[in-house]
Amino acid sequence: MVHVVTGGAGFIGSHLVNALIQRGQEVVVFDNLVRGRLSHLERAIESGYCVFVETDCSDFAAFRCAAQAALADRGGEAIWHLAANSDIPAGVADPNIDLRDTFMTTFNSLLIMRELDISQIHFASSSAVYGDFGELAITEQSAPYKPISNYGAMKLASEAQISAALEAYGKKASIFRFPNVVGAPATHGVIYDFVHKLKADPSRLDVLGNGLQQKAYLHVTELIDAMLFIAENGTEKVNIFNIGPKDAGISVRQIAEYVRDAVSPAAQITYGASDRGWVGDVPRFRYAIERLQQLGWQPSMDSEAAVRRAVHEISRDAA
Amino acid sequence: MVHVVTGGAGFIGSHLVNALIQRGQEVVVFDNLVRGRLSHLERAIESGYCVFVETDCSDFAAFRCAAQAALADRGGEAIWHLAANSDIPAGVADPNIDLRDTFMTTFNSLLIMRELDISQIHFASSSAVYGDFGELAITEQSAPYKPISNYGAMKLASEAQISAALEAYGKKASIFRFPNVVGAPATHGVIYDFVHKLKADPSRLDVLGNGLQQKAYLHVTELIDAMLFIAENGTEKVNIFNIGPKDAGISVRQIAEYVRDAVSPAAQITYGASDRGWVGDVPRFRYAIERLQQLGWQPSMDSEAAVRRAVHEISRDAA
Repeated sequence: MVHVVTGGAGFIGSHLVNALIQRGQEVVVFDNLVRGRLSHLERAIESGYCVFVETDCSDFAAFRCAAQAALADRGGEAIWHLAANSDIPAGVADPNIDLRDTFMTTFNSLLIMRELDISQIHFASSSAVYGDFGELAITEQSAPYKPISNYGAMKLASEAQISAALEAYGKKASIFRFPNVVGAPATHGVIYDFVHKLKADPSRLDVLGNGLQQKAYLHVTELIDAMLFIAENGTEKVNIFNIGPKDAGISVRQIAEYVRDAVSPAAQITYGASDRGWVGDVPRFRYAIERLQQLGWQPSMDSEAAVRRAVHEISRDAA
Repeated sequence: MVHVVTGGAGFIGSHLVNALIQRGQEVVVFDNLVRGRLSHLERAIESGYCVFVETDCSDFAAFRCAAQAALADRGGEAIWHLAANSDIPAGVADPNIDLRDTFMTTFNSLLIMRELDISQIHFASSSAVYGDFGELAITEQSAPYKPISNYGAMKLASEAQISAALEAYGKKASIFRFPNVVGAPATHGVIYDFVHKLKADPSRLDVLGNGLQQKAYLHVTELIDAMLFIAENGTEKVNIFNIGPKDAGISVRQIAEYVRDAVSPAAQITYGASDRGWVGDVPRFRYAIERLQQLGWQPSMDSEAAVRRAVHEISRDAA
């Protein structure tokens, strides 16, 4: 039985593929290589346990054809659906991007799941489904949801479609509400941006917004560990979990300083005036993970440790 | 300034159009006449305050062209977005139906809103966004949402997309989470089905499911009153409200008996074994409307009164 990973050539996807292989699973990756890179899967493909198929999961005919061929002589155990737009500002400028890359990929994954009789789907959702709860610590019971980006809206739409589908077919779904995730090989995100800005001009680092946005960060290795834990131990039909560190997060100013210290200690940091980096950005963000802790999983790093490790990894890769 | 009503030729839409005209507003209706009927708008069109345009709001190019033409020489005040699939079982059988008719019509309405600089959107959402909360009274804070039909999923997706859009443009949105709504001119629903079954065979009424499903019902005249009240009095950017009666509802058995008494008193009623009428049907359903009462609106009929009035209206129309 094979594990399907959509978006498996991406930052988080490639970590998941490696972790599944380490657990003795065979993996088929579907990725359109728009944001993902084949180089992320080098080790997995060399192992002989990973088949890579370039296909766009938002194109149902193409995705279906690729899935039928790849799973023809063996069944699918689960779909790990990670393919999505990851550029939130791009999706705010053009809502068609999140509709196509974030929602339609989910819609199509569910059709494939039914057609190929795959019993599980595990979905990379996001804290962005909640919207802005200010200083409140967000639990899975926090409501009503008012996402402020099309990215968050289409993640919530995907969750809803999964929930409805599981009523009609399939055995189990996991919905992982990701926090901000850091680590290498990064393709975007605040650390990646700061590192590359400083590599381009080592004398200065211009930060969008006032840098007081405070968010929680999880290292990608811990995220993968939590995903596998929930997929294995979730007892409901549709298992919804926040994943994050235990702390309330660190500020963008702290991140800017860690990056400066690692990349160009003499650089000057300047800040903007707004409390949001861009439309769709949540300025403050506190995440409660008691539900996940009750299931039996604990993070080992706090936001600061995760960010410091990621700064080290990303600045090393950019060298 | 004109009020746009999508799905305005439908059961609820035509009541809304009449109510807006009674308040002195001009209305433009967009409806594809698949479930709506032009006859529902006779009185509105005769008044001279309603323009009807046949167009499919899920087809962006057609909708945009129709909206540009209809609003060319006057601005739009608000979009009342009611166009949607209303056949829940059909949407469970084919998820493309709710994607197209329920979600894409919302997605396109938001693009039209931005393009034509319309500042408000008022959306017909549904209690189906919540899923099955069993005996618990559902408030706007009940979470997490686990819709069990594609209809509920695409209503939730629509809410999410509206919330994200309002972050970028527009001034105000209302999200009305409708209960079961009854009244004439009905095009579907439990009362309509029972009346037509009994008209076809006055000797018997076969009920899907065991008839013990208990739900709250609101009469359409009260629904419209609540919608107009929320649109006028909601103080947030995105105003989410449950709309319903105050009581815990009545059973399908009671409805079957009211219809039998009104249409064919000698008929025999038989019941199925399942506690759900169909996949996607929520067997029990209790709705809390304290938030709406706090805003200042009160229903005047309970579920029984609403159903009795609707049975009278629908059986009269079917005569």
